[in-house]
Amino acid sequence: MKLYEQAARTLRQRIDHGVYRVGDRLPSIRALCRELEISVSTAQEAYRRLEEAALVEARPKSGYYVIPREVPTVLPSVTRPAQRPLDVSQWDHVLALVDMAPDEDVLMLGRGVPDLEAATLKPLSRLLATLHRRGGAHDLSYDRLSGSRELRERIVRLATGSGCLLHPDDVLITTGCQEALSIAIRTLAAPGDVVAVDSPSFYGTMQILKANGLKALEIPTDPELGISLEALELALEQWPIRAIQVTPTCNNPLGYTMPESRKRALVALAQRFDVAIIEDDIYGDLSFATPRPKTLKAFDDDGRVLLCSGFSKTLGPGLRVGWIAPGRYRDQVTHMKYVSTGASATLPQLAVAEFIAKGHYERHLREMIRQYQRHRDVLLRLVKRHFSADTGISYPQGGFLMWLELPAGVDCLRLNERLAASRVRIAPGSLFSASGKYRHCLRLNYALPLTATVAEAIRRVGEVATDMVAEAIEHPLADSQR
Amino acid sequence: MKLYEQAARTLRQRIDHGVYRVGDRLPSIRALCRELEISVSTAQEAYRRLEEAALVEARPKSGYYVIPREVPTVLPSVTRPAQRPLDVSQWDHVLALVDMAPDEDVLMLGRGVPDLEAATLKPLSRLLATLHRRGGAHDLSYDRLSGSRELRERIVRLATGSGCLLHPDDVLITTGCQEALSIAIRTLAAPGDVVAVDSPSFYGTMQILKANGLKALEIPTDPELGISLEALELALEQWPIRAIQVTPTCNNPLGYTMPESRKRALVALAQRFDVAIIEDDIYGDLSFATPRPKTLKAFDDDGRVLLCSGFSKTLGPGLRVGWIAPGRYRDQVTHMKYVSTGASATLPQLAVAEFIAKGHYERHLREMIRQYQRHRDVLLRLVKRHFSADTGISYPQGGFLMWLELPAGVDCLRLNERLAASRVRIAPGSLFSASGKYRHCLRLNYALPLTATVAEAIRRVGEVATDMVAEAIEHPLADSQR
Repeated sequence: MKLYEQAARTLRQRIDHGVYRVGDRLPSIRALCRELEISVSTAQEAYRRLEEAALVEARPKSGYYVIPREVPTVLPSVTRPAQRPLDVSQWDHVLALVDMAPDEDVLMLGRGVPDLEAATLKPLSRLLATLHRRGGAHDLSYDRLSGSRELRERIVRLATGSGCLLHPDDVLITTGCQEALSIAIRTLAAPGDVVAVDSPSFYGTMQILKANGLKALEIPTDPELGISLEALELALEQWPIRAIQVTPTCNNPLGYTMPESRKRALVALAQRFDVAIIEDDIYGDLSFATPRPKTLKAFDDDGRVLLCSGFSKTLGPGLRVGWIAPGRYRDQVTHMKYVSTGASATLPQLAVAEFIAKGHYERHLREMIRQYQRHRDVLLRLVKRHFSADTGISYPQGGFLMWLELPAGVDCLRLNERLAASRVRIAPGSLFSASGKYRHCLRLNYALPLTATVAEAIRRVGEVATDMVAEAIEHPLADSQR
Repeated sequence: MKLYEQAARTLRQRIDHGVYRVGDRLPSIRALCRELEISVSTAQEAYRRLEEAALVEARPKSGYYVIPREVPTVLPSVTRPAQRPLDVSQWDHVLALVDMAPDEDVLMLGRGVPDLEAATLKPLSRLLATLHRRGGAHDLSYDRLSGSRELRERIVRLATGSGCLLHPDDVLITTGCQEALSIAIRTLAAPGDVVAVDSPSFYGTMQILKANGLKALEIPTDPELGISLEALELALEQWPIRAIQVTPTCNNPLGYTMPESRKRALVALAQRFDVAIIEDDIYGDLSFATPRPKTLKAFDDDGRVLLCSGFSKTLGPGLRVGWIAPGRYRDQVTHMKYVSTGASATLPQLAVAEFIAKGHYERHLREMIRQYQRHRDVLLRLVKRHFSADTGISYPQGGFLMWLELPAGVDCLRLNERLAASRVRIAPGSLFSASGKYRHCLRLNYALPLTATVAEAIRRVGEVATDMVAEAIEHPLADSQR
């Protein structure tokens, strides 16, 4: 370990242990040099690392401070989507977001990809290499259709942490959480059927509805409490809803976690109307709360919740390891899994199982949760600094996604066009609605190390957005599609 | 290399070069000892290896002979399925076949799994290990939704060998060929629609129809020429067929390759009735003909053929690397791919691309084709020896699957039950029909090294089947489901 890394680590441990608290001034460069017997440039480099890690900030002519907690001044409004079943559109825009070659030189501020460079992930690559080095039929053959027993056992143990008592046979491994969601939806609904969703909602799920000819009934959603149970109840009375699809924990894109009482009430409502729930928990393990919040599945006593999750947001999407606990729909889900892709690849499953068994997963989660929470605070500060004061900002309770609501009239599809020259892209809010609502909203990712480049990109987004707000006020009818 | 391996290799090269021809007697043990200056036990071991490789056979009191070519005496009949659209059943039986844990101690004579222990596969495991050792974001992140450019370029070059001129953008990588087929079918047909299939037909595809509420119209099929074009034409006149799904090259389960003229005529027929074709070519690269036969896609001048393939039968199903060339349906197929599983895992794609680029794939195919062709001949001989003389036997033109037609009245689901005690299983023919026809047929796999254990298992299957034939003659009404 280099000298400046040692120095940075020493300071970091003191912050973690509360020796220096949020808002405290840290030792000056000179004091640090004396104390640790290092050079000025080493001390400067150590602080630079801590700044990059979003642990400290430099205040001009004052020194370095432990970054204080930051909360949004204005939250996004409670959403008010159309209260009738709609066909889903927006595929072209989703495709533009998800089908970018990884080597294109564009800073993707809107994608749902975690930090893949984390040191705590290294053992996973080593495990994968070792398993492959053994070679032979092992690499190349199928395991059970339901997936490796080892991994299902690990998942069952992890799920106790979210209040679920599952048996390994209650779990099927899928090719990412996307396949879990796709299978769940196709198991429950046929073309023309209506699925209720929290709104805004993950575009991947919305596009599953589209591809299968289903209609989305978007339910108003509170940026802190989640889906409106009152609106959902009215909708259940009024429409023949086949399934309720929600992301109640570390919601994508809003970041809220539904309070436990509301989760319980949601399951009760589904029981009363005899409707199934598809629960997307892909960000759940990244909750900032300890212990992590319970899933809806924890309150499911008659097998109507199909819990979908996986390791794309905690380990990496390229592994394609997801899972589903389909409750009473196990047989149909097994059939759908078989016809969808057959058994999933064996080796990544074994690697993840071993990564968990050896304690690496827990260690990695702890590290990522700390990092993402710090990054959230830094991004909050940057957004407050660079966006107009009336911008609604979500306050994520986990994960690495933030939702901004700009003044009505600002079109974030056009914002992306204007950002093209700066080689920066956000995720326009319209992707998260069946009918392209939320055009004045956008999603940002704070998983990436918040380097000067990222900070500059956020500044640039804020600058262009602010210009557009001004234009919208001057020419309120310029954008006919508003 | 050990001495007996060297000796076996010397003999093998002579057989390959025609020094010893089919049916020739090979040097005696004594002669071989003298010539190669090896011990008797080494010479015996060398011959044992060649027997296991199905290159030579020992004839009692005579010596070792190069195994002669064998052809079936009786072919399976031309099939006569119900000529109306049917719902697909048989899922329980398919599940029993495909969802067996790999470590269960049962010899699966009916599965569609290639030889995964081949020496020519070793470089693939090494490539996978090396790629993972590099580690980092590479392992864990997504590539393009359409898959790695390197692999798509390799596939395009391979496809020239089957008469196709494709551009890398015409190809999408999928999670195995099963996903390619699933996506193709869902792109073309909605619940209630009719899909025409060659019959018998791969159960995986039939189950896709079932899961999506589609009806199968099974078309009579000739065991040497493939789907009956005359019957298909009548069906196209009579029913609103949305797609034709066929496996025209190295058919599963019948093993035929449709003659080129009939492939051309099939595409012309589809054009005349303006119907799309879903072509399953997963076994095509394992054709025993040189050069390998053309695909239907080679005759497709208006983009109506969706060519589905992959590396599950040539390299290994556990890789889950498949692909689709969807012709004019590219946009819808891309959407279906996105909602089905998102992008496919990156690293197996890169490993396969490199395996091809370095010439390993060609070498491996050459070796496997030689092996499977020899195994086919040996299995033919075993079946002729152990099954009743009126058993119809297919004559596979590639791949590693053989279809047997027992006398009517023999129930192969019951055959499997009776084989349970011997820990042997075949694939019952009824899985290959929408309505459970072909109960008197079965599929065998000859990919595995034809060891004494496998030969004994085949003998046992023949013995039980022969018993059942006798019972069926004595009690023709015993099996009401016949």
